[in-house]
Amino acid sequence: MKNRGIFSQEEYRSRIRKTKEQMDRQGIELLLVSDPANMNYLTGYDGWSFYVHQGVVVSLDADRPLWFGRQQDSNGARLTTWLTDEDIFGYPDEYVQSRYTHTMRWASDLLRQKGWDAKRFAVEMDGYWFSARMYLTLAEELSHARLMDGTNLVNWVRAVKSPAEIAVMREAARICEKVMNTAVDGISVGTPEKEVAARVCAAQIAGTAEFGGSSPAIFPIMPSAERTSTAHLTFDPERRYQQNDVVLLELCGARHRYHAPLSRTVYLGEPPADFRSTAEGVVRGLKQTLRRIGPGVTAEEVERHWREAIAKSGVVKPSRVGYSYGLNYVPDWGEHTISLRPGDQTVLAPGMTLHFMPGIWLDTYGFECSEPVLVTEDGCEKFIEFPQQLFLK
Amino acid sequence: MKNRGIFSQEEYRSRIRKTKEQMDRQGIELLLVSDPANMNYLTGYDGWSFYVHQGVVVSLDADRPLWFGRQQDSNGARLTTWLTDEDIFGYPDEYVQSRYTHTMRWASDLLRQKGWDAKRFAVEMDGYWFSARMYLTLAEELSHARLMDGTNLVNWVRAVKSPAEIAVMREAARICEKVMNTAVDGISVGTPEKEVAARVCAAQIAGTAEFGGSSPAIFPIMPSAERTSTAHLTFDPERRYQQNDVVLLELCGARHRYHAPLSRTVYLGEPPADFRSTAEGVVRGLKQTLRRIGPGVTAEEVERHWREAIAKSGVVKPSRVGYSYGLNYVPDWGEHTISLRPGDQTVLAPGMTLHFMPGIWLDTYGFECSEPVLVTEDGCEKFIEFPQQLFLK
Repeated sequence: MKNRGIFSQEEYRSRIRKTKEQMDRQGIELLLVSDPANMNYLTGYDGWSFYVHQGVVVSLDADRPLWFGRQQDSNGARLTTWLTDEDIFGYPDEYVQSRYTHTMRWASDLLRQKGWDAKRFAVEMDGYWFSARMYLTLAEELSHARLMDGTNLVNWVRAVKSPAEIAVMREAARICEKVMNTAVDGISVGTPEKEVAARVCAAQIAGTAEFGGSSPAIFPIMPSAERTSTAHLTFDPERRYQQNDVVLLELCGARHRYHAPLSRTVYLGEPPADFRSTAEGVVRGLKQTLRRIGPGVTAEEVERHWREAIAKSGVVKPSRVGYSYGLNYVPDWGEHTISLRPGDQTVLAPGMTLHFMPGIWLDTYGFECSEPVLVTEDGCEKFIEFPQQLFLK
Repeated sequence: MKNRGIFSQEEYRSRIRKTKEQMDRQGIELLLVSDPANMNYLTGYDGWSFYVHQGVVVSLDADRPLWFGRQQDSNGARLTTWLTDEDIFGYPDEYVQSRYTHTMRWASDLLRQKGWDAKRFAVEMDGYWFSARMYLTLAEELSHARLMDGTNLVNWVRAVKSPAEIAVMREAARICEKVMNTAVDGISVGTPEKEVAARVCAAQIAGTAEFGGSSPAIFPIMPSAERTSTAHLTFDPERRYQQNDVVLLELCGARHRYHAPLSRTVYLGEPPADFRSTAEGVVRGLKQTLRRIGPGVTAEEVERHWREAIAKSGVVKPSRVGYSYGLNYVPDWGEHTISLRPGDQTVLAPGMTLHFMPGIWLDTYGFECSEPVLVTEDGCEKFIEFPQQLFLK
């Protein structure tokens, strides 16, 4: 049967081994993984069920992790994971968004049943998928456990990609090229913004002739005009593109939930001199900085190279200029590990994948030109070949 | 300037008043709202920035709420909310996903500055957007505050929709009709599943000739064949539809983040007798139950009517059969308040909007046929007119 995980069982087992190694190093005996990307990474599980409580539990003393979730999703775990039926536990529907009980009571019973209720037990404390109430309920139920913080533990294991993952990310990059082409080609004076956005969404799923895409972790961000003065607005469903519009495109392709993000900027007409010079400064800085990304360089050094590269251009970019990315679900394709900014001492290593993203949002407009790259043995390699420029239409 | 909130300032002020009334009733002086739908509901804020910490703070003693978020998103708050510049607070980028500090330390400073650090202070404890770490950090910082649980407080205010909201939800329903038509029309033996999914995604955004859509809170759920035996899988990016496939369609239209969900089922070929009889039983039960939904009926009574209506058909549906829905962001268009299931004593009232969703997932296939409805003065009204049947192709 296909789709029992996208990767080989060896790949999943190696991920579990690396996770256990990190757990052991941090004195963690038991780890509850509730982030859907981490669940997918360890087991292959792939369903839009993360709006209810669910998780994967990794125990140092168990060969395979266990999956738990809503009963009606347990067939989904059977169909998409490499786990056996005895590793899959469904809870009754009365726990879903209940005002009277809590899923973590049921989960605590499960842990007791497995003899795992007095462990050094880490949870993803700062994740979207581990609420304060989940924590307080587990703390109340498992008085013999020592609750610890396992935020981003699996995310850090994910930071270095395997060759099989890189192959999937190259497929995502092929989709992303089509998506970005669709957007740049589609934007013109008089065209409804929603029409271009609709074509972009279709391109993300249709993928290439050879393979299809998957739903993006961030919905297409494609603001125009004054809406480009900030980071996370999108198209206006009522508006048509107008002469002298700036349009920011922060898009992606996704394949089996692995992403290829890319940002570009379009100007409709003849851009003002200051805008053109901002664009040129950013593109020049981008090109120079890419030459400095490689193994042994730290994340903060990359940001410093960027700052030095743009020092003379007058461009000021006060936020981080990139981050680690890969497998993900909404709301973010970033992995919440490596950030290219002052203070991040992560030493880059082959197999890491970074979105170098020097976005500029000034008071009246913005400019973005980014590159997703793979750190290689002796530098870095772009995932995507797409002209690094301001697109004039 | 347009887009400073979709609704009138009076509408937003009335929402704040109702929220304060609920706060007062529960002895809450200060409320931190981190759910992006609740933030939008109270202020109009609409950006894909909820992957970092942000919030709206409602104080009983303040006329307007305050918005805080990442500095680079504060222009987004200026462009999309009815708040004034002095209500908008941006934090520096170094707080984003930091390993050394936490956004809630910055937020605590802000509350101290406002003199709000010793209040009876409720947070959305069981929300996706309020992590255990956020709670523990606030508890550490605000030792004079009394932290309380405000989970779903605003969601309950949202349960009864205003006429202006219902008008937007009717627009979402028009989009949903187009979306479902696109899917049912597109499915045929030999067509790649990804192609139909791509068309569905485009239809969600293109909307109607008069207005555009917005990104859905749940990505199109459209599994085929054995993947219909569970609740939350979607299309297979490599597969083409085959003779004798069952295809489940759990889709929506969305307008300004307000949803219109709808489920239907397609069969390619001549369905087996047991499948046909399941479908007929569900549709008959659906029709009978809709006649019983109205003001004064409790949520659990609706479920009981459904159970009675299908008792003779042999269909067993052990999970809840519906829920309140409306304004939302990923990962769920449900509002986490009213559930149509045993034990839910909510008395239905005019203006409530429910997705009556009797999905059946058996071991080898599933069947879904749902209706989004508005509770009226004397019954309920379907938002969408779409044939209630198993679609044979």
